Amino acid sequence: MKNEQILGLQTPCLVLDRTKFIKNIDNMKAHLTSLGVSLRPHVKTAKSLEAARCLFNGNTGPITVSTLREAEYFFEGGFSDILYAVGIVPHKLPRVKSLLKAGARVLLILDSLEMARSVTEYALQNNIVLEILIEIDSDMHRAGLSPDDPLVSEIAVVLNDCPATHFMGFMTHAGESYNCTTPAEIKKHAQIERDAVAFAAKQVEKFGVSSKIISAGSTPTAHFSDDWTGVTEVRAGVFVFQDLFQAGLGVCDVDDIALSVLTTVTGHKKNQNRIIVDAGGLALSKDRGTAAQKFDRLYGLVCSAEDGTLIPDLIVEAANQEHGLITSTSGKINFAEFPIGSRLRILPNHVCMTAAAHSHYYVTDDNQSVTDVWQRCSGW
Amino acid sequence: MKNEQILGLQTPCLVLDRTKFIKNIDNMKAHLTSLGVSLRPHVKTAKSLEAARCLFNGNTGPITVSTLREAEYFFEGGFSDILYAVGIVPHKLPRVKSLLKAGARVLLILDSLEMARSVTEYALQNNIVLEILIEIDSDMHRAGLSPDDPLVSEIAVVLNDCPATHFMGFMTHAGESYNCTTPAEIKKHAQIERDAVAFAAKQVEKFGVSSKIISAGSTPTAHFSDDWTGVTEVRAGVFVFQDLFQAGLGVCDVDDIALSVLTTVTGHKKNQNRIIVDAGGLALSKDRGTAAQKFDRLYGLVCSAEDGTLIPDLIVEAANQEHGLITSTSGKINFAEFPIGSRLRILPNHVCMTAAAHSHYYVTDDNQSVTDVWQRCSGW
Repeated sequence: MKNEQILGLQTPCLVLDRTKFIKNIDNMKAHLTSLGVSLRPHVKTAKSLEAARCLFNGNTGPITVSTLREAEYFFEGGFSDILYAVGIVPHKLPRVKSLLKAGARVLLILDSLEMARSVTEYALQNNIVLEILIEIDSDMHRAGLSPDDPLVSEIAVVLNDCPATHFMGFMTHAGESYNCTTPAEIKKHAQIERDAVAFAAKQVEKFGVSSKIISAGSTPTAHFSDDWTGVTEVRAGVFVFQDLFQAGLGVCDVDDIALSVLTTVTGHKKNQNRIIVDAGGLALSKDRGTAAQKFDRLYGLVCSAEDGTLIPDLIVEAANQEHGLITSTSGKINFAEFPIGSRLRILPNHVCMTAAAHSHYYVTDDNQSVTDVWQRCSGW
Repeated sequence: MKNEQILGLQTPCLVLDRTKFIKNIDNMKAHLTSLGVSLRPHVKTAKSLEAARCLFNGNTGPITVSTLREAEYFFEGGFSDILYAVGIVPHKLPRVKSLLKAGARVLLILDSLEMARSVTEYALQNNIVLEILIEIDSDMHRAGLSPDDPLVSEIAVVLNDCPATHFMGFMTHAGESYNCTTPAEIKKHAQIERDAVAFAAKQVEKFGVSSKIISAGSTPTAHFSDDWTGVTEVRAGVFVFQDLFQAGLGVCDVDDIALSVLTTVTGHKKNQNRIIVDAGGLALSKDRGTAAQKFDRLYGLVCSAEDGTLIPDLIVEAANQEHGLITSTSGKINFAEFPIGSRLRILPNHVCMTAAAHSHYYVTDDNQSVTDVWQRCSGW
């Protein structure tokens, strides 16, 4: 499919504008470099070796993954320093062991004494060394221990005392930054997560336990942060593509969104002022994250397929499995502009979810032809 | 993975209870047989050859698909009578041609004069015969022409007059039945769709055009219908697995749902009365269809992993990419009942969307061990 014209592709499919993608990466890297903190990108968004290499100027580097399938895929592709950012459970340890035996570094996270004991036992029995971070909950959004929970030190000591586990430090994810409405609030959340992990590190120091890795971040807090003192690495993922949700947060402009779903007009519902397209709930995802934002983007905004520019008055108002229903926010659609069989591009609400239904990216440098085809990994 | 214990599977993954699955199929077939109408099941739900064969007692039969990828996959697996139920567009015709040349029957649908002219032209130029249904909009839900639109007859005549196209009849989808709140309303919608396609068929008869196929249906209308006079085949898909949305419509009981997502408890958030599991928005889907129903199931209901029975007071209240957050609707969770590392099963809101993120089904006959592993097709 390389060198094919974008307008000749089977739809629905993903089109990646490489210029915007690289600009998004460069902007984040420049920002974090200026703050003196390194980036451990979360590759759960693109799930693609080629995309991940662009984060390291064509090389590999430390990454964050959301599944062991990703860990295995990226390790096979040369990425050997991997943080698995979902709480480890006993039955997944044999897969971690296989990765370690093959030469990978896999940092694990946990937030309970039960799992701390479980990993020490497993590591001892299997003659391996497991590197562990404790997950800290900085904003009551998801998993992790509160930084002032006495369990934090108790777990750190258990891990530190075991010869088969290395206590490496702390990680947190500022998920609540997704619910913020102003850049100032997000900046505040960046400080909260920074302070939460720094506090936890100070607590365990009292027990003679030191932290090598202090990991924090999310795309919004990474973007709006101005001080990561005490944090050794920032994790962020969505920023590589950006999406309408991030645009709603002010993290990017709609025009910065690098990924879109190419779709074909399959019908005109003139009596309902609707265009029907072949990108539905599967191709676009059912994520309605923007519903809680100031501008609800429903199931996505619509762009010209020819050059990717926004068509300001069109919006995907509904999505069945393989049907998207586009309407106009400003009166009658001029149906002659969008003949049946013509193409459009849809900008995603939440690009991690949208990309997940697709097996590959059609990469373009000129918005006309396919320069590269990048595969994605999927599943667990 | 065959013969493996369910409780030993890597999570998240799909567990299919074959007994419930077969019962769901038998019930629908018996109901439609009693009404004297045949079933052309929509295989977009399971997207699996083995699952589809269960609809035909181990054999093949007429099916409905939502993508050309499905058409190709099922044809390779022996299903040769296929209705592609998304409006055809010019650039997909070469794939249809390849299927026809290989011996498949592919029924296409359209709802515009432009596409009618386009398919006649393509069929003539390519020396093939295309079989076409006109899509009728019976409830202003999605695509199709209103049954009384003069275009219906105009298109039928164009298709009928062309030696390279066979006008086959009409199809409609009662999507609005998904918005009903009572069985009586759904039954009414079954009559509306039946009458819409029957009316369209009568209109074109005036022009000397006859209809061989009159196709209607959705799981809700198929279930609650009592008279399909004039309809030659009913399409329905979700019924094979059922889901919480269908249970909300009264189409099934929660206990009839045959498919669940097996997940592992990754953490306890005691200060928030939450269990964290490793099935998130990807494994469960972000479909929130039940939000508009009387009982909002949020991101799914929770069952015992051991025997699949419902745990009545647990619900998945939030879903990040790889994290599900379970809470209790009736006070404090007894965390000791759900230790970290233990398993649960989540019932899906909308099973078509949930199943789509997974590559295979673990089929069980006894809720203990895996009897079969069935692959799914995906993509476009």
